[in-house]
Parts: sequence; C-alpha cells; structure tokens
Amino acid sequence: MITEVENIGWEDRMASRTQRMKSSVIRELLKLTMRPDIISFAGGLPAPEFFPIREFDEACHHVLQTEGQVALQYSPTEGYPPLKEFLAEYMSKYGILVEPENILIVCGSQQGLDLLGKLFIEKDGCVVCSRPTYLGALQAWNAYEANFCSVDLDDQGMVVEQIPAIIKAGHTPRFVYVLPNFHNPAGTTLSEDRRNRLVEIAREHDLVIIEDDPYGELRYEGEDLTPIFRLAPERTIYLSTFSKTLAPGIRLAWVVAPKPLIQRLVQAKQGADLHTGTLVQMVANDICQRGILKQHVKRLRKVYHARRDTMLDAIEEHWPAEISYTRPAGGLFLWPRMPEAIDTEEFLERAVEEKVAYVPGFAFYPQGAGGHHAMRLNFSNASEEMINEGVYRMGVALKRELA
Amino acid sequence: MITEVENIGWEDRMASRTQRMKSSVIRELLKLTMRPDIISFAGGLPAPEFFPIREFDEACHHVLQTEGQVALQYSPTEGYPPLKEFLAEYMSKYGILVEPENILIVCGSQQGLDLLGKLFIEKDGCVVCSRPTYLGALQAWNAYEANFCSVDLDDQGMVVEQIPAIIKAGHTPRFVYVLPNFHNPAGTTLSEDRRNRLVEIAREHDLVIIEDDPYGELRYEGEDLTPIFRLAPERTIYLSTFSKTLAPGIRLAWVVAPKPLIQRLVQAKQGADLHTGTLVQMVANDICQRGILKQHVKRLRKVYHARRDTMLDAIEEHWPAEISYTRPAGGLFLWPRMPEAIDTEEFLERAVEEKVAYVPGFAFYPQGAGGHHAMRLNFSNASEEMINEGVYRMGVALKRELA
Repeated sequence: MITEVENIGWEDRMASRTQRMKSSVIRELLKLTMRPDIISFAGGLPAPEFFPIREFDEACHHVLQTEGQVALQYSPTEGYPPLKEFLAEYMSKYGILVEPENILIVCGSQQGLDLLGKLFIEKDGCVVCSRPTYLGALQAWNAYEANFCSVDLDDQGMVVEQIPAIIKAGHTPRFVYVLPNFHNPAGTTLSEDRRNRLVEIAREHDLVIIEDDPYGELRYEGEDLTPIFRLAPERTIYLSTFSKTLAPGIRLAWVVAPKPLIQRLVQAKQGADLHTGTLVQMVANDICQRGILKQHVKRLRKVYHARRDTMLDAIEEHWPAEISYTRPAGGLFLWPRMPEAIDTEEFLERAVEEKVAYVPGFAFYPQGAGGHHAMRLNFSNASEEMINEGVYRMGVALKRELA
Repeated sequence: MITEVENIGWEDRMASRTQRMKSSVIRELLKLTMRPDIISFAGGLPAPEFFPIREFDEACHHVLQTEGQVALQYSPTEGYPPLKEFLAEYMSKYGILVEPENILIVCGSQQGLDLLGKLFIEKDGCVVCSRPTYLGALQAWNAYEANFCSVDLDDQGMVVEQIPAIIKAGHTPRFVYVLPNFHNPAGTTLSEDRRNRLVEIAREHDLVIIEDDPYGELRYEGEDLTPIFRLAPERTIYLSTFSKTLAPGIRLAWVVAPKPLIQRLVQAKQGADLHTGTLVQMVANDICQRGILKQHVKRLRKVYHARRDTMLDAIEEHWPAEISYTRPAGGLFLWPRMPEAIDTEEFLERAVEEKVAYVPGFAFYPQGAGGHHAMRLNFSNASEEMINEGVYRMGVALKRELA
C-alpha cells in the first residue's frame, strides 16, 4: 500500500510560490462545523432546499435526449455559444452591453480569479483590494505571489480615495479588485459616488479594475447601482456566476472583458483545463432559455430577505448593545464588529461549545493583518428557526464574555 | 457597446509568463476542420456515437431525484468520497494499490497537469519529457515558464537512458513526464525494460515521475504492462481520466499521489476553482457503481480496434511505401513519418484541398524543434468508411507530392 511509502521530501521539491499557498480557513472550519449538532453561520452556502432540482432533472434529460453527442463531447474553450448569447442578452438589463465574444465561461468565479492572476500578476506585483476582502481572491493570487496593497472599507464600501496613496508610495498596481455589491464578508455596497470616484482614479492612473459580482442579483431592498463595467468598459473585467442563483455544484461562472483580454484568458484556460464541462453548460443554458433563472432568483430574494431580517432582529434582541453590525441590502453575509475585549478567533471555541459557528474576521485580511474583532455570519444556509436559535446561543456566550 | 472601446494596451499589462502562452495549434486547427465536408483525423476526440447517453440520462435522473440537494451544492476540494473509493478499488486491478486519500478528483487531466506545474515548476526549471510529447502538457507548463529538456522517443517509447545526460549537463529536473501507454502523439508503449530503467534512474537521481495514462484501458492487443506507479509509488504521480472511457464533456479525471502531495494539490486546486463539479462527479459515480464503465470500455476497445486496423490497412494499400508508421497496441493515434521531401506543416494545405486534416508533427515538439516530417492521425473519431476515404485522399496527395 502506498500509505507505507517513505516521504521523499515533497516540500523541498516545491516551487517558491507554494510557500504562500495554504488551505482556506473556511474550508477547514467547514469540516469542523459539519457536525450535525452545530448551527453553522460559517459557510457561504446557498439554501439547498430551494435548489431547482426538478428543473435540473428536466434539463439534463432534455439535453441528453436531444443533443447527447454534443453534451458529452469536448467543446470550445470559450464556452458553449448559446449560453454566451443568453448571458450577453441577460446582462444588458443591468447595463452591461456586450457581445458573446466578450464572454468566457469558467468553472466558477474562482477560476476567473485564478486565470486573471495568471495573466496579470508578476511576483511581488501590487494588487489593490479592500481589507477585509474575499478570501478566495487572496488564495488565488497568493499562488502568484501577489503583494496585496489594501485600503480601508467603510459603510460606503471600499475607500477608493486611498488608492492614489498606494501609487504615490511607489507601487504599480496590476489591478484593483472590487466587490461592489453586498461585499463578502462585509455586506457593504459601493456607493454611486465611490464608483464614479474609482473610475476617475483608474483613468487618471491607468488602472485595470476587476469587478467581482456574485451577489448582485440578490438585492432585498433599494435600487440597483450602476455596474463599474458600465462606467469604464475599456478597463473593467466583470465576473458573475450561477453559484448563488442556480446552484454552486455545477461550477459555472463567466468573465466579461474586452476582446483582446478574452483571447488571452482563453489561452490561459486552455492550459488550465481545456474547457468548462459541456454537459453542465448545456443544462444551465436549457434552464435559462426556459426563463427559469429569473423566476427562481425572485424566489431566492424573498427567502434570503426574510432570513436576513430574522438574523438582524435576533441580534438586536439577544446580543449586547456594544456590538455593531452592517445592515446589508443584499447578499449572504453580516459582519458584526465586537468590542476590543473579544478576539473572534479565540471566541470561536466558546461559540462551538455553544454549538454555533462563524468565520473569524482575520481570515479575510491580506496577511491576516486585522479583523480580530469582527466576524462573518452567513444567513442564507439556515432556517429562520435555526438563525434565531444560533444567534441566541451566541448572545449567551457573548454576554458571558463581556460580563 | 464594448466592441467600440479603445484598447488600453492589454499586452503591456501582462505578466512575463504570458509570453510563453499561445493558443493550441490543435484547437485552432479543429476550428478550420469543423467544416462538414472535411474528414478530420486532426482531433483526439472519442467517437460520440458510442457515448453512453442513456446511462448518463438515467444517472442524472437518479442522482438528482435521490440526492439533488447534495449534487447541486458545494463539495470538498478533494472530490466526492464515494467516487474516490470506487477509483481506489478500480485501479487495484492494474496494480495501483492506494487509499481514497491518495486521490484528488480534477477537471480533466489537463487540470492535473496545470496544478502539478503550479506546485513544482520554478521559472526556467527543467522538465524532462520526450520529443514528441503531449501538446497539452507543453501548454500547461509553458505558463510556468518551464525549460523543457527533451529526450528521444523510439519504438520502445521514451529513451529514458538519455536522462542522466541532462543531469550531467547541469539541469535539475523538477520531474520526468511520461506517457507510458499508447503515447500521444506517437502511439508507442514504454517497454517493461524501459519502465524498470526509468525507475532506477529516478531513484539514483532522486527524480519525481509524472505518469500520464489517459489511454491505458484502450488496449487492442497484447498484455498490460506494469504501471510505473507500482514500481516506484514513493515518487510517482499517476494521472487517469474518464474522458476516453466515459466522455470528455463531463471533464473528470483523477490524480494519484502520496498523501503529502495530495494535500498540496488540494491547496492548489482550492485557489484554482474550489472543487470539481458535484453533479458530474455523482453522475459518474452512479454510472461506475452500476458496473457500466467496465462493459462500456470493452465495447470501445472493439470499435477502436477495428478502426485502427482499418486505418493501418488503408495506409498499407494507398500510401507510398517510403512512409513509415507505428502500429500502436492501443490508444487513439498513428504517427506516420514522411520522407524529407514532405514538410507536414506545408503539406497540410494540400491535404485540406483534398478535404482531409491531421496535426503536423511540429506541434508536439517543445519549442517546435522537430517533427516537421511526422504527422498525428486520429482513428477514433471517424467511421471505417470515412477512414478509408480519408486515407485514400491523403494517399493521392502524397503520391503527387513525392512524384
């Protein structure tokens, strides 16, 4: 059995970039919190009880029966053409006006981030992001040895006004990474003013913008804001996904960008995995063409809206008053901030004793430099009853800690 | 419309590694040869008329109906546990004795190659391969700026005896890349002697071996040889795939390696795409658990065996005698070698005029340094009738050229 073989010193054989590659704190946590007795607010998972299972079943059957030979064969790296056409049309209602040739289908937004890192990031190259920021972006770009130059984040989102100082300090950003809508983990939305300011700064300093928008469709109140892509189509790369609207288990997302960049992304993807699965693309396309996506998103908005409200109400009722928190207008996350006395990494043990879990804030900071008094709570993946109970339990532990 | 936006100079923003990234000659060719009037021997595609479409349909239905919530949700980076268990058991009949923890499920072997490049290849790091070698490996590792140190290939496969000279010349190979069974493009099988010699050399010089085995199950004559993994489990990374046995459109393959390396591959995959699609893994598992894989492979062997023989016979009958060619014991490819007078890149135009296509040999050489008088012919993706006709047409053009 291979289990008994000697270790020939694998670590000494690794390229230097691997020193920055680690397992995601969240994924390790998720393993811990999969115990059925724990109420977990730690993941970022959609509610599986609302997956359109029957629709997937019908679509699989239809695709395989009518075009099985195509669905199971190799297909173009760029993506399944009818799906790209659908997406080009679909995004136009958000003011993103593109042709199918501006779109690359990828295996989840995470792959989009990885391919962009491969194209743009030179060792020690500066990448501008907010602190906190999306953990998966840190993971993807650590593998290319990025130097994360972070700016603050407040209730209006990323403080883009701090970007010129980074450049003044001698850095040349490869790009600015922005999560404009219902930020993961902070829940904030980049204000219209800030969007305009970001575009001004990007044009003044000739910067590329990566606009990561997995949650844009999950808005529970207020009006949609202008996509940055619309404001600066010449220098913005836009990412969206089916993971939060249809299902994450099909690993389908897309990148929107100017054509010369799409060509480069296609080359990078060819080397990375040849192409995205044909069957899942055709199944997603079948579902979309039948108009199911729109009505399904409408339903999800209703469910998640109620869960968000339940969590906000429960925190209001059960948590000590000195804890502050965002009121996100959409998305999947709350980002409560604790008094100095509570280190959210240490407190996690207390929470798990009470059989509740969350992600400590430090996980979302480049180089772990901050977030020690914040935590990310997910409200999409637990029933309202569980949310109430979990928030109550955490409240007990928090009060004990702060007493 | 974004089509009208200015080009902000994307090329100047790219990381230096992109200078080595190009579109695959094959994929570009495939576009050209998708014209329905052309008989294409250029691809490496399985025969779609034998895809187990009904079985896929049944499996999709069964998985979605019984475990839809799991199938559409995020899942572990390592892969779907029951599929890993099946594969561990399945490979044991080939003498590959491992536990599920030695397996990582990936999105096609191509992703396995990419992740291995990410872990092992430092800029200008030496990678040992044969010339010719698999085009996709060159593509994957060009992105990590590998220095390909190639050795010859003869009828016994890669001439592994040339490896020590590479080391003597001052190179430190990150690994040796081997396609032991029915080599793509050359069709050769690494002899038992050479396998043993390779392992001796690897142990003497402390080298890692990547054993890429997509075609191993497609043997049409003779006996299976010993997997290199079995001979040197402490230093061999084994890759296999469902692309040639079930279907490529589901993008499912697996990497077998010692556990410390699997952990590193999992980290790399987390950053690259989080995990392989849950639905397709469960569908493939369902098909495998019902015993369909084995019987399906048996059927494919019969079909491809006949097609190989048809192609060999047709070449014997219609081509000039000075053209030599391999007689592969399995796989999907023939590798005819032309007299000096024929440059296979130039001759492609003649062939396309005759409405036949193939891949010129130079595409399979690192840095394009060779293969100008060889060509790769695929025999799995055309009916026997088409094979006869295509080979005949090429024969006409070849005779004209050599006259």
